[in-house]
Amino acid sequence: MTADEAEPGTVRPGGRTARVRAAVLRAAGDVLAERGFAHMDLADIAQRAGVGKTTVYRRWGTVTALMTDLLTEMVESSLPRTHTGSLLDDLTAHARLVYTTLTDPRQGPLFKAVIAAATYDERTAAALRRFYDARITEWAPCVREAAARGEVPEDTDPREVIRAVSAPLYYRLLASGDPIDEATADRAAKAAIAAARAGIFSPESD
Amino acid sequence: MTADEAEPGTVRPGGRTARVRAAVLRAAGDVLAERGFAHMDLADIAQRAGVGKTTVYRRWGTVTALMTDLLTEMVESSLPRTHTGSLLDDLTAHARLVYTTLTDPRQGPLFKAVIAAATYDERTAAALRRFYDARITEWAPCVREAAARGEVPEDTDPREVIRAVSAPLYYRLLASGDPIDEATADRAAKAAIAAARAGIFSPESD
Repeated sequence: MTADEAEPGTVRPGGRTARVRAAVLRAAGDVLAERGFAHMDLADIAQRAGVGKTTVYRRWGTVTALMTDLLTEMVESSLPRTHTGSLLDDLTAHARLVYTTLTDPRQGPLFKAVIAAATYDERTAAALRRFYDARITEWAPCVREAAARGEVPEDTDPREVIRAVSAPLYYRLLASGDPIDEATADRAAKAAIAAARAGIFSPESD
Repeated sequence: MTADEAEPGTVRPGGRTARVRAAVLRAAGDVLAERGFAHMDLADIAQRAGVGKTTVYRRWGTVTALMTDLLTEMVESSLPRTHTGSLLDDLTAHARLVYTTLTDPRQGPLFKAVIAAATYDERTAAALRRFYDARITEWAPCVREAAARGEVPEDTDPREVIRAVSAPLYYRLLASGDPIDEATADRAAKAAIAAARAGIFSPESD
């Protein structure tokens, strides 16, 4: 197996394989954000990426496999969580990261496009669930640490708090279309903490 | 202008025009939920609805116009809010209505499909925003009444509370893919109230 044929993620960063992957995923994201899943075509993406068609067909094979790899790359390149020592500051950082991502001129349309693609493609939907699972897993410890410090009840469900911070931003982006600003993000963090303190995210409150 | 040529919404309910509209919108919803916006075709929808192609072309003309009318019909047929005299009961009713809609075998895929369609079609996106605006407007008075009863601060933003109830359910449906159950809905209502009581949805807290 040559470097060019290696599976994504198994080669050293910065090598030719990594550069080819970056170029192809960038082109795939562009097509997706601009025109949507229905218009994705491996030959077109190869051309935009300046990569041989054969390489793209050999490495990814299908548009769905490319979508899955795009979401894997979104997990790999996403930022690690903060460690501020305060739940409000940690959750505000999380909310602002979601806010800057969803309002970014490239990332915002890309997220909308990936979510739209997941509606009709089960493998993309599974890769999308893994993306959010990874992001929730990354941030959940800040809630556990806050519970240990006594900032929220000890039995607070950490994952439910992280979901509660993201939800109002995604709801505006995907459903209501209401504008998203920094105040929306900060309010989402504060609302999640208020609910956690009231015991709403503690299992027995169900 | 004959009844058959009348604009949707201007004719008596139950007439031939209303029956044709119901059949065409039902077929449009079916195609959308099963195959997506990219596969919507007026002639195919007319055939599924058992309605003449000419009628469909004359009344709607484009797939986008049909999408807009579908969303108008979704507003018209959506349920009125409850008046229980308790904010928790009203918001729980709202949350459960969103929950039953999004988990309904027909409505759930339809909402996902309409939201996906809005990603690439600006008129559908505008119609979608009008749908959520109408739903938020329908439910917001229950927060104003609760504020008058002293259940939440007087300056609570009613629309922000209603959005906060829907958001966790839409986030799970569209983004994280986590399961949605009645407990999720009930928790969403309680979390929104806890945040409102803490003053998070009062303007000066921004």
